[in-house]
Amino acid sequence: MFHQPSHINFALPEWLESYSGTYQPSSSLDERMMFVIGAARRNVEECTGGPFAAGVFECGTGELVSLGVNLVFTQKSSILHAEMVAIALAQMKLCAYDLGGSGMPAHELVTSAEPCAMCFGAILWSGVRHLVTGALSEDARAIGFDEGPKPANWIEELESRGNRVITGVERDAACEVLQLYARSGGQIYNSRKG
Amino acid sequence: MFHQPSHINFALPEWLESYSGTYQPSSSLDERMMFVIGAARRNVEECTGGPFAAGVFECGTGELVSLGVNLVFTQKSSILHAEMVAIALAQMKLCAYDLGGSGMPAHELVTSAEPCAMCFGAILWSGVRHLVTGALSEDARAIGFDEGPKPANWIEELESRGNRVITGVERDAACEVLQLYARSGGQIYNSRKG
Repeated sequence: MFHQPSHINFALPEWLESYSGTYQPSSSLDERMMFVIGAARRNVEECTGGPFAAGVFECGTGELVSLGVNLVFTQKSSILHAEMVAIALAQMKLCAYDLGGSGMPAHELVTSAEPCAMCFGAILWSGVRHLVTGALSEDARAIGFDEGPKPANWIEELESRGNRVITGVERDAACEVLQLYARSGGQIYNSRKG
Repeated sequence: MFHQPSHINFALPEWLESYSGTYQPSSSLDERMMFVIGAARRNVEECTGGPFAAGVFECGTGELVSLGVNLVFTQKSSILHAEMVAIALAQMKLCAYDLGGSGMPAHELVTSAEPCAMCFGAILWSGVRHLVTGALSEDARAIGFDEGPKPANWIEELESRGNRVITGVERDAACEVLQLYARSGGQIYNSRKG
């Protein structure tokens, strides 16, 4: 007999609340990125997911709207990349599927690594106006992660829709977390090859 | 003060359980697709989301593993495309982030319309081995939906990873649901343009 659940439900790591509480709203892009990279590091140290984190911030004030981390293997869900978690939490909080809706401040997604093919698409639909990334796709590939076939001109695709993109912010610090994960023998999960 | 929720939680429409119960495992691809298209139609009729549905099935037996519908505007979340819901539910049920893992039967995603840029990426990470689609991207575009910048060779990208793709199954029936939605004045939501 087929059973249909009534909800989709994902648990967030317990440490995320206390870590989020340490954030001091900052107008410095580097500080916002270092806060996000700190969450990625903590996710590795606590063994709660892959070495990736992402946050949604208000552009003007630097206020934190949501903080997400990769939860793929702990929540057993391939859609739970950090960017997806951050977008879902921000939209839950603001009760809006469009974070760029009228009457809202502009929002920025700060992510510790460039988005994969799925998250690239998700960013388009989320309504965020700015994307800020730490590690480059090649850095994630260097430890074995596959980012999938994004369009070669993915940055131009975002910018053509009014989404400003800044890449490589605090790249070295973001790469250190990837290296930490690789050294600790963390799971690398990718698409099937056949 | 920043508040971090402990969970991400999305409610599924109440009618989904009884509708899912009507499915009789079928080895006919057309029948599986018509069941999925029926869910898309019901989603429009019940005003619980956009005109899209998707199901995960076991390839050999035709057993239904999960059924998802588009919930973007009712759950206020841009990530809740039908394919994402179906993949999340299937992985919850099987406690696995990889639906193609060892010891598992092969799984197929049957979706009432070709995937958008986000869902294309999600399919890669989900572990499904077959993708079957109803309406074409141009059919969704014809009523105003934007599927985003998928790679032009998205089918080849899936096939090069061992994922068999069949498009246009019961396309006319799938298009009828899109037309029904357009006539009923359903919300069209897309990426921001600036």
